[in-house]
Amino acid sequence: MTSPHVLAFDVFGTVVDWHSSVTRELAAFGERNGVHADWARFATDWRAGYVPAMDRVRHGERPWTRLDTLHRERLLELLDAAGISAGDADIDHLNRAWHRLDPWPDAVAGLTRLKSSFTITTLSNGNVSLLTDMAKHARLPWDCVLSAELFGHYKPDPEAYLGCAELLDVSPGQVMLVAAHPADLRAARAAGLGTGFVYRPAEQGPGRTARRPPDGEFDVHAEDFLDLADQLGCPPGE
Amino acid sequence: MTSPHVLAFDVFGTVVDWHSSVTRELAAFGERNGVHADWARFATDWRAGYVPAMDRVRHGERPWTRLDTLHRERLLELLDAAGISAGDADIDHLNRAWHRLDPWPDAVAGLTRLKSSFTITTLSNGNVSLLTDMAKHARLPWDCVLSAELFGHYKPDPEAYLGCAELLDVSPGQVMLVAAHPADLRAARAAGLGTGFVYRPAEQGPGRTARRPPDGEFDVHAEDFLDLADQLGCPPGE
Repeated sequence: MTSPHVLAFDVFGTVVDWHSSVTRELAAFGERNGVHADWARFATDWRAGYVPAMDRVRHGERPWTRLDTLHRERLLELLDAAGISAGDADIDHLNRAWHRLDPWPDAVAGLTRLKSSFTITTLSNGNVSLLTDMAKHARLPWDCVLSAELFGHYKPDPEAYLGCAELLDVSPGQVMLVAAHPADLRAARAAGLGTGFVYRPAEQGPGRTARRPPDGEFDVHAEDFLDLADQLGCPPGE
Repeated sequence: MTSPHVLAFDVFGTVVDWHSSVTRELAAFGERNGVHADWARFATDWRAGYVPAMDRVRHGERPWTRLDTLHRERLLELLDAAGISAGDADIDHLNRAWHRLDPWPDAVAGLTRLKSSFTITTLSNGNVSLLTDMAKHARLPWDCVLSAELFGHYKPDPEAYLGCAELLDVSPGQVMLVAAHPADLRAARAAGLGTGFVYRPAEQGPGRTARRPPDGEFDVHAEDFLDLADQLGCPPGE
């Protein structure tokens, strides 16, 4: 591809470490409620509800529903299955753990470097309020906050990738999606975007290491955001 | 009102000084093209096309059209009326002067203080790419960039104010619109938002001083963003 004008970032797993952040919040919830459980596994099970729930929206089986609502429905199912009860306010707070995810150690420094050369935006299935709260929590220096919610289409629907280019008034080829997930990148490529893979081996938590896609499958393969900044020719950070 | 959670900012005239920025870009355009004109008046005339053009969209006389396009149409009319010709690339560059407006002197320091206590967002009739470019140019530290474009409704349509609250997942009463324009604030209030007036006497350029609304008409009346931060109880800046 030609040099991109916009870098659009997948967020969960690519920018922030959802597994350890959510596990920590679940453990704190357990302490408050006097409940013991395998919270790392609970976090994995919570996240496992994500794709099937979005797919029901994507396939028209239910109207547009923001991710906060999908997260809460899955959480209630899992709490019920585990026989755990809690008050509504505590459940609301726990559900918003996804608004308080911590960044990978290189994320803020890398984004700050990338921002000097490119427009950097989220392009996430998280809703706007989730992404805005997260940016505040994690001090992520986005130029703007774009979400599937604005397009009424979850990734990997092409409308999400094309909508990002449209709102930023560039051609799809002037946008590079940056993501740790090959399926997201492949859908972006099919919509005409450039692709930047970033390897996040620990995304799924302890005991599970993500596989690398074959070298050369994507326009750029980077070890982290600092490596991405190097490969895209950004000036060194301060 | 109760203390707001979100401050939503009108942008043209409230955050940035459009008249002097656009006049300067017009003068540079004139120099490049060997044309002399009263560029301060040209800037005023350009801006004067803004409300009638948006009203045609608001009243359904034409489909949704982003502000960049409305700006360009008006610019072409004014250049034509003045007998000035220029190339498409130069006109495109000039039209994007609205993406490169300079902030009022207190804006960045004030927003930085306000951001420590509130979620701060744009709520402007400018399109998303315009606002994103402007934030980069002027180093405006928004938490997110919301625009009439996302709602398909220009202010003062209520959908714009209510859409902002909806996307940020708060009630209208938890949002305060901050603006230098009483009409914008009155429409926000009618939609249930709080109101913060900021006095920008020089918005219209030399020789025209904006009038102040009567004391007490809005929830807060501030001299600038630093005064607004003081009145809303934000900690002092660094």
